[in-house]
Amino acid sequence: MDEATLQSAFAALRIPKTHTTVGLSNLVAANKEYRSLFVNRRLPEDGWSDIQIQHFLFLLSTLDTNNKRSSSLRWCGVGEREGRIYSSLVANRHFGFAHGMGRSGDITEPQPKAVGSSVLVQLTLFLVLDAIRRGSGFNAQTAAQYGILLPLCTGMSMSLVLSSLREANPDRSIVLWCRIDQKSCFKAISSAGLTCVVIPTTLEGDEVVTHLQALEEAMSDKVLTVITTTSCFAPRVRDKVDQVAKLCQTHNVHHIINNAYGLQCASTSKLINRACVVGRVDAIVCSTDKNFLVPVGGAIVLSPHESIIQNIGKVYAGRASSSPILDLFITLLSMGLKGYQKLLQDRQQALENFAQRLSAVAEKHGERLLQCPSNTISFGITLDTLARPRDESEDETAYLESIRKPISALGAMLFSRCVSGTRVIPRLEQKTMGGQVFAGFGSSHDAFPHAYMTAACAIGVHPSEVDEFLVRLDKTIHEFKKKQEKR
Amino acid sequence: MDEATLQSAFAALRIPKTHTTVGLSNLVAANKEYRSLFVNRRLPEDGWSDIQIQHFLFLLSTLDTNNKRSSSLRWCGVGEREGRIYSSLVANRHFGFAHGMGRSGDITEPQPKAVGSSVLVQLTLFLVLDAIRRGSGFNAQTAAQYGILLPLCTGMSMSLVLSSLREANPDRSIVLWCRIDQKSCFKAISSAGLTCVVIPTTLEGDEVVTHLQALEEAMSDKVLTVITTTSCFAPRVRDKVDQVAKLCQTHNVHHIINNAYGLQCASTSKLINRACVVGRVDAIVCSTDKNFLVPVGGAIVLSPHESIIQNIGKVYAGRASSSPILDLFITLLSMGLKGYQKLLQDRQQALENFAQRLSAVAEKHGERLLQCPSNTISFGITLDTLARPRDESEDETAYLESIRKPISALGAMLFSRCVSGTRVIPRLEQKTMGGQVFAGFGSSHDAFPHAYMTAACAIGVHPSEVDEFLVRLDKTIHEFKKKQEKR
Amino acid sequence: MDEATLQSAFAALRIPKTHTTVGLSNLVAANKEYRSLFVNRRLPEDGWSDIQIQHFLFLLSTLDTNNKRSSSLRWCGVGEREGRIYSSLVANRHFGFAHGMGRSGDITEPQPKAVGSSVLVQLTLFLVLDAIRRGSGFNAQTAAQYGILLPLCTGMSMSLVLSSLREANPDRSIVLWCRIDQKSCFKAISSAGLTCVVIPTTLEGDEVVTHLQALEEAMSDKVLTVITTTSCFAPRVRDKVDQVAKLCQTHNVHHIINNAYGLQCASTSKLINRACVVGRVDAIVCSTDKNFLVPVGGAIVLSPHESIIQNIGKVYAGRASSSPILDLFITLLSMGLKGYQKLLQDRQQALENFAQRLSAVAEKHGERLLQCPSNTISFGITLDTLARPRDESEDETAYLESIRKPISALGAMLFSRCVSGTRVIPRLEQKTMGGQVFAGFGSSHDAFPHAYMTAACAIGVHPSEVDEFLVRLDKTIHEFKKKQEKR
Amino acid sequence: MDEATLQSAFAALRIPKTHTTVGLSNLVAANKEYRSLFVNRRLPEDGWSDIQIQHFLFLLSTLDTNNKRSSSLRWCGVGEREGRIYSSLVANRHFGFAHGMGRSGDITEPQPKAVGSSVLVQLTLFLVLDAIRRGSGFNAQTAAQYGILLPLCTGMSMSLVLSSLREANPDRSIVLWCRIDQKSCFKAISSAGLTCVVIPTTLEGDEVVTHLQALEEAMSDKVLTVITTTSCFAPRVRDKVDQVAKLCQTHNVHHIINNAYGLQCASTSKLINRACVVGRVDAIVCSTDKNFLVPVGGAIVLSPHESIIQNIGKVYAGRASSSPILDLFITLLSMGLKGYQKLLQDRQQALENFAQRLSAVAEKHGERLLQCPSNTISFGITLDTLARPRDESEDETAYLESIRKPISALGAMLFSRCVSGTRVIPRLEQKTMGGQVFAGFGSSHDAFPHAYMTAACAIGVHPSEVDEFLVRLDKTIHEFKKKQEKR
Repeated sequence: MDEATLQSAFAALRIPKTHTTVGLSNLVAANKEYRSLFVNRRLPEDGWSDIQIQHFLFLLSTLDTNNKRSSSLRWCGVGEREGRIYSSLVANRHFGFAHGMGRSGDITEPQPKAVGSSVLVQLTLFLVLDAIRRGSGFNAQTAAQYGILLPLCTGMSMSLVLSSLREANPDRSIVLWCRIDQKSCFKAISSAGLTCVVIPTTLEGDEVVTHLQALEEAMSDKVLTVITTTSCFAPRVRDKVDQVAKLCQTHNVHHIINNAYGLQCASTSKLINRACVVGRVDAIVCSTDKNFLVPVGGAIVLSPHESIIQNIGKVYAGRASSSPILDLFITLLSMGLKGYQKLLQDRQQALENFAQRLSAVAEKHGERLLQCPSNTISFGITLDTLARPRDESEDETAYLESIRKPISALGAMLFSRCVSGTRVIPRLEQKTMGGQVFAGFGSSHDAFPHAYMTAACAIGVHPSEVDEFLVRLDKTIHEFKKKQEKR
Repeated sequence: MDEATLQSAFAALRIPKTHTTVGLSNLVAANKEYRSLFVNRRLPEDGWSDIQIQHFLFLLSTLDTNNKRSSSLRWCGVGEREGRIYSSLVANRHFGFAHGMGRSGDITEPQPKAVGSSVLVQLTLFLVLDAIRRGSGFNAQTAAQYGILLPLCTGMSMSLVLSSLREANPDRSIVLWCRIDQKSCFKAISSAGLTCVVIPTTLEGDEVVTHLQALEEAMSDKVLTVITTTSCFAPRVRDKVDQVAKLCQTHNVHHIINNAYGLQCASTSKLINRACVVGRVDAIVCSTDKNFLVPVGGAIVLSPHESIIQNIGKVYAGRASSSPILDLFITLLSMGLKGYQKLLQDRQQALENFAQRLSAVAEKHGERLLQCPSNTISFGITLDTLARPRDESEDETAYLESIRKPISALGAMLFSRCVSGTRVIPRLEQKTMGGQVFAGFGSSHDAFPHAYMTAACAIGVHPSEVDEFLVRLDKTIHEFKKKQEKR
Repeated sequence: MDEATLQSAFAALRIPKTHTTVGLSNLVAANKEYRSLFVNRRLPEDGWSDIQIQHFLFLLSTLDTNNKRSSSLRWCGVGEREGRIYSSLVANRHFGFAHGMGRSGDITEPQPKAVGSSVLVQLTLFLVLDAIRRGSGFNAQTAAQYGILLPLCTGMSMSLVLSSLREANPDRSIVLWCRIDQKSCFKAISSAGLTCVVIPTTLEGDEVVTHLQALEEAMSDKVLTVITTTSCFAPRVRDKVDQVAKLCQTHNVHHIINNAYGLQCASTSKLINRACVVGRVDAIVCSTDKNFLVPVGGAIVLSPHESIIQNIGKVYAGRASSSPILDLFITLLSMGLKGYQKLLQDRQQALENFAQRLSAVAEKHGERLLQCPSNTISFGITLDTLARPRDESEDETAYLESIRKPISALGAMLFSRCVSGTRVIPRLEQKTMGGQVFAGFGSSHDAFPHAYMTAACAIGVHPSEVDEFLVRLDKTIHEFKKKQEKR
Repeated sequence: MDEATLQSAFAALRIPKTHTTVGLSNLVAANKEYRSLFVNRRLPEDGWSDIQIQHFLFLLSTLDTNNKRSSSLRWCGVGEREGRIYSSLVANRHFGFAHGMGRSGDITEPQPKAVGSSVLVQLTLFLVLDAIRRGSGFNAQTAAQYGILLPLCTGMSMSLVLSSLREANPDRSIVLWCRIDQKSCFKAISSAGLTCVVIPTTLEGDEVVTHLQALEEAMSDKVLTVITTTSCFAPRVRDKVDQVAKLCQTHNVHHIINNAYGLQCASTSKLINRACVVGRVDAIVCSTDKNFLVPVGGAIVLSPHESIIQNIGKVYAGRASSSPILDLFITLLSMGLKGYQKLLQDRQQALENFAQRLSAVAEKHGERLLQCPSNTISFGITLDTLARPRDESEDETAYLESIRKPISALGAMLFSRCVSGTRVIPRLEQKTMGGQVFAGFGSSHDAFPHAYMTAACAIGVHPSEVDEFLVRLDKTIHEFKKKQEKR
């Protein structure tokens, strides 16, 4: 509506002209921000208020045909799917958006009946790319030049990326996977109908690192891609993706980086940027929920190559829920660039003494911090004194087996004391996935020489959570040991 | 935002032009409806969808200064009241509106900081007047020519109307009140610092009607106003407001009609219209919640005289919550004229056999329907057989007193069987209000010759509620009598 | 909280005991409904109010750890994913649920940190199975004995089902696909890394039907599965799934039915029930949005075999958004069984004269209804007179090519007149998907002898939409022909 | 629901017992907080999350009969007001509460049909009293021993208090009002049908203070009450309510304190506490919106005397909207005591250099801060140099009149630069209210010797607002002077 109309309409409502002028200047300011969002497609510096975000969302949803299908009957629908919503609760929680995203051919395709939805999805992509570039420090010319938003978790997104690569390279069916003890990615490989070859890790001090030599030896012309990981639990540290990238370039093999929750770590971003320059990186898969504090269920895939991104969109068969995208859109507008940067800085600040304080608790109980400086998110302390020492005559395996359960109990104790997110890993845990046996499961290494536990200092953590965690950890280990003694 | 901007912005987002055209045509259609609302200020024929209503509300609230006071700091506030809202839950339930309505001088005055709020309040007044004129059948030239919305119940609104009349007529302090046994209005008179003279009612068959002669006899130059009532519980029927209006004109006395929930009854509207033509009516007070199905707390005062309405606004000292107005605004837009008319028709339809079916239940138990044809909302049946018959030797008063409690028990039984809204009135109930004794309290008559109960067929009642009520009533009377027999 | 506590607490707040009794009886009644839902896990007969649904949702979300992580710090989280939500708008639209569904190993696995979420997902499965059994008429012992809810559209769900079958049968890689001209399912096959063999259709009168002979001839020990379809656009009718089921049993080949929006059609349900009895059916894939009027993005896979369902859950790599499940949960509770049955009946009623009235419009313009009695959702009318007749000397292909575009224009005209969902199919449309050429694309037949258009009478359609559609269609064909004449 | 039921129900849903235990422990913790709220009726130390607040609200609204009146028809309503809500948007914004508060006899009376609503209102009163006692520092034994919440602004609340006093003292009709230039309170006096005698103020340095002698001289046996004010714009400072209280005690006259937005100032609380001890205070009226950051429309009246409070409730004729109470309830739970204390501390911190920095800006432009140390909320600076100096020959009144408008323009300039809340007061402003002339209107003094402007440092102000205000003020005065020079 033009200002002149409003001005005369308001005058008829006996609103003084000076009031109207102020009000319209607010509307003009809001519209300017909307226009700027449309035109510049960048994260606003300052976050928007919830009121402004909702106004904008309803503006967009008004564009969709299902929302002009009310009692006045502008639209009549005689298709099999017309975006009808039965429950008003459901309609309202989606701000009227009903058509999801994509079309049968491509998940990024705009929908004729739902322009507002299409715009929402496209805009969110631009906003999140901007956040990743200006906030997380990804290079806009390489690592984060192109991207696609998927309403799927990182595992399924990885599967989709693999499917798209497989379709373009039908005679390569092997995936070299730098071992990381997490199920989703491993399953993604077989979901995509590919064969996983696990590349073992190696130890450097406490750090579990990429075994470059083993990787190189596994290269062949049957290899479709290498998968590396840049966010993981200590003592595993991020893969040496720059060096892997060089190898992949040399051997003309794809390279996918699983950077699930790595966007919060500036040094990881730098490393990935470097990998894109010195070697080959085809896709970087990141979670939206772990990095941007939205509910579970979205991923962003980045790539220096447009065609890689386009092929991913085409593999997704059909429409999809846009709900995870909507969450991300609201969150990014609410944060603004400054809000996102503040979250990153707050984490940085929480980090500063996290390791040191965790170390102090460990040492109080005769344990020590695992020295994994390349992992800035997850931290580990040894738990070797929790169990009885080994009798000299005892077989080591039998010994380790006998203390597995007692040590694991610490994790349950912490959880029952309302500490969530810690992982307690006894030595020589073993697990079979997809027919393959993983020794030392949990540590990503066959023979990590310590029982240990990890805790993360992740984005969004509140200082009081850290304080409280350290207090409860101290207390719980104390209680744990006391219990042990009693037996 | 102009269409050209959106078109090119969407093109940059790779939305095909044909899609954009469809979407913008929806937006244009919505904007046309908004403009029409601003310009015509009439209830839309068809109700709006919740999405459209919310879009419009956020459009309005964007005009208020408190909603452009976000992190980007367009506005800075250094007053003592800046519309800050602590809780986001609270902000969202008000769609960002924080400033309420009115200013210290007048509750209808627009607020410089909150143009959106001011527009909301003004528009709602126009919409409700339109609903009352085109839906309820009030004459736009007389009875419903002017109006004011108050975020107060009918009782307090009545008090405000009385205060405004008193200020203009400082030496008249008596209010003639055609007896209606309901506390709020009676209290409103004393709240306004005036003296209430109760005009008794008289019987015409079962109907409790206006005692015109008693009223005329009470007229004097100390009388400020007469208060009549047009919506009430049977056997009281609406006052003969046309004849009272003539009396008031003759005696140059104000006349206020308490039409609390009468807007749902077309014949009452006609009678009030007639009263305005043949005599004097100064103000008609109607509830918003009882007539328009919104939560408790609002009233609309109508008048053929602009000055009467203006004076009411000036009596309210200070700002007020606009929450009841917001509810009404949303509801009227959601109904549209057709929706409101449908509600009125549905009630009309429910009415058709309500009395007849209620009568059938009554007769089954040896009782009968009270014949009160002028009351089309509330219906009564006698309950004389519920109590033991009077012993011939027994004093009537003692007898009536002795059966008061047993009869009342029926109401509690119905309530405990999840029937709400019935009123059971034994004979000779007595109550003292403001020092005055009311004999036969509940029936609005000193000596109504029956115990009885009432039930209403009010706007919004669902046919299944009526069905179920009649079943439960039948059953409950049956049980009641059985219990009585046992004793 | 127990009633005694509330009773004494309310007494302390000066609430009379009789009031408290009534209020608590309401709470008890609500709790009884909750308990019944937990214990019986069936759709309530009557739908719940939005208030009750929200109360229940917040009850569940209170169980999740992220919602007790407030300022009082019951929980402290030191994992990399703690269900933190940045935006209060986002948190509220999910009623506090942040953890999605599933774990890395299995999408149906409960989550330790999020019991409320786990319960929500499990309950929804039971409710939707109940709706499908008692509402849509699926047999609870066969076709709908087991089920899994996926937050994915039908296409991706089909892909997941195929992946799970492939993993169990690694040396069968061919999928026999009874041709249906829709991209998602075709893409799902290649997404799963399988080879699609298209089985042609055949004509029976106007109906495009299953070519059983061609299907049988294609059977081999390389065939993993047959895919049939039971909801489709006219003139294609649902596949003869009972006979296909027999063939699959004979040849020991899997059989997946794509029943995308077929749950609204009772005769289709019966046919599928029969197929499960007389032959082999492994999985039936249905959309949640098209059948239950929720936003796009969910599917339910049914099966008579538990292991089939379990394997699907294991293929999904990682957690997923539970937002589509939440929508379904709210919607089913809001409908109740009666509400869902009413929707089905309303469609049945709309159907009764849909074909007949559509036929009348067609005949008015010299066209006719396509006779496809087995398709009760989609209806077609010929459009042969829309184009100029063929010149005798003219080559047929050249002729058809020349009139393709003009005929297509009718679809665009209808859309620009705000009719959505119609499909206009000229003759000899051709399309290439995945390297395969489909002649006569759109009709699912190489040489369907008419140009035609389709319209659906789908669940949720409003009678006024049908009325208005027929008016606009009539008008649009009229205008279309007039325009043609002018040229 | 008892835990045992849930545990077995969850087991049937295949939720592992350990998960259920964690979830139920969260529910138990929440229920414990609810119980504590019911039993202790005190503000929780830590604020509740929005999820928990909503859970609790829906728990309460489930108690109301209108919310068990769904399709399953537990309740059937045959009254004229059954809490039916037409729009689901409206129902949801009130969390299902429809019945408002109070009954025709008393606004604090519980409602039989709406126990949840009754409990909500009662609890809110306890919470706000607790906030006022433990947060704002009011004495629980005297000043804040009793209280009543009104869904009315301070002005109307004052009117209600006056009405209740008048009814108890029918032959006293004079109100002595210590002059404060604000319309609402003045109007409240006449709304209540009482006569206002304005007691002039006097100057002490820059401060405009209570004229105790004038007050004492005006005392008589016709005086119903004195009204003093403790929150006001500089240079008016809070009244010497302790000394006034003594006077009132001596003369046996009521004493009402208008403490509209004074709860944020600890020294004011102390002074009022003292007044209650050393003399007579009958009622203290405070705004809810200005003190607790909720939308406009509520007040709390405090008193050391229970009967005073009870009489106020009885004067309100009828039911009222409970929406302002609901806002306050949500807000107080969301804050918790710590959150409220933090707001008070933040203001205290903002205060520390507010005056000093404002003074600096003033001095830069040749003006100075008004020295009003007893006003800790509103601050003033002189504006004497903004206008041309007086010509020696010029008549002072004529001179002041000639510079009135130019000086006022500064306020408009600030507002148009998005600074809200400042007040610019030229000298010798004059205004007539209710027939009485107020010289020097705005300053509350007949002859305040400066033109000046005020700005407030009120609760909820953000430090960045203060920073920005000072920058804009500096700039605006600079521009203002430049403009003046040009003329």
